Amino acid sequence: MHEIHVGTDLREKNRLIAEENRDLIRKNGVVSLNIMSAPGAGKTSLLVNTIPHLRDRYSIGVIEGDLQTSRDAERIAELGIAVYQIQTGGVCHLDASMVHSALHRLDLDIIDLLFIENVGNLVCPAEFDLGEDARVMLLSITEGDDKPKKYPLMFRESRLLVLNKVDLLQYVDFDIDKAKGEALDINPDIEILELSCKTGEGIDGWISWIEKFYGKCRNG
Amino acid sequence: MHEIHVGTDLREKNRLIAEENRDLIRKNGVVSLNIMSAPGAGKTSLLVNTIPHLRDRYSIGVIEGDLQTSRDAERIAELGIAVYQIQTGGVCHLDASMVHSALHRLDLDIIDLLFIENVGNLVCPAEFDLGEDARVMLLSITEGDDKPKKYPLMFRESRLLVLNKVDLLQYVDFDIDKAKGEALDINPDIEILELSCKTGEGIDGWISWIEKFYGKCRNG
Repeated sequence: MHEIHVGTDLREKNRLIAEENRDLIRKNGVVSLNIMSAPGAGKTSLLVNTIPHLRDRYSIGVIEGDLQTSRDAERIAELGIAVYQIQTGGVCHLDASMVHSALHRLDLDIIDLLFIENVGNLVCPAEFDLGEDARVMLLSITEGDDKPKKYPLMFRESRLLVLNKVDLLQYVDFDIDKAKGEALDINPDIEILELSCKTGEGIDGWISWIEKFYGKCRNG
Repeated sequence: MHEIHVGTDLREKNRLIAEENRDLIRKNGVVSLNIMSAPGAGKTSLLVNTIPHLRDRYSIGVIEGDLQTSRDAERIAELGIAVYQIQTGGVCHLDASMVHSALHRLDLDIIDLLFIENVGNLVCPAEFDLGEDARVMLLSITEGDDKPKKYPLMFRESRLLVLNKVDLLQYVDFDIDKAKGEALDINPDIEILELSCKTGEGIDGWISWIEKFYGKCRNG
């Protein structure tokens, strides 16, 4: 119940810092995506499969959010990419002030594209504006097609829904039309892509989406 | 950051109500399990696959926790079981006061075994004692074998870890020995079972675990 009792002050404070982050990101010509999902939906795998397709044309930075460990950051660092790890120490989401500290430690003037990987959680991350340009959420098809109506806020707040692990569609009961329909009921503007980080299917569509979004942000 | 600022008072208030719940549950001879996992790991499927094996010998009650919708409760109600739905309205975990209200609406004096299905979240539910006899966590093998060290609190607080969806082991990269080893590093007392709600493999071991735990609680 903590969010009900203390929400207003914290949200307002978060909003102000998020605006500062937005200014800082824009002033440096950076385009930023906040990647959100439940635990294990494949956020880090998606980044590991995305970066090689973009690194020749864009200078990339990554902020990794985790409760504990720096395993995800290590996976990204192996690609030779600038990465800053936030360990939240048990807090279940990133907030704007955590990201603010990270922004000051990254060399923003040389970064074109910044990925912020949130803590694995389908609920709270959606409540905290980080100052990002867009929110992207991953739903692994192994989580079930009933998630949009059960966790509506994240679907409402996201510009893009990525359905991951589609290589497993034949082995699980997941009705892709039902999931898409429910996501669109909640957020009629949401864009939806399907892909598999394991087989690489659909990665090209995701890369095109990023390029188009980047162009839109940079050209106003 | 809300939990850091306001944690102490809320935890203390929650602890007191959890103790009331525990008294109420014990006074009525009920044995209760708090089932926790990330979204889509299969909590409701596990209950749907468990109840038919136990209903002839135990009177069963279920408390369902969800942010929105009563879909899970409807799946349980189809089995003819007493079920009470808590809709948290966006709060990312059950707390003791929500469960307290539910307990007053269930016919506790005829219930032997009470399952409390928490909100899908690997973080916050572990922080809130509900007054249950034991905590059981599900980890779907599709979530990855790195979860124990990334989300340690839930592994530390659980008596039993159920690895679900083992029918998919051949299609995903999941090292079952690594996951078990990391869970045991965090909680050397945790018991671990493997099962598949889809194929039924391992369900008998889970049913035996419940029966043994029930016997232990009822015989002191």
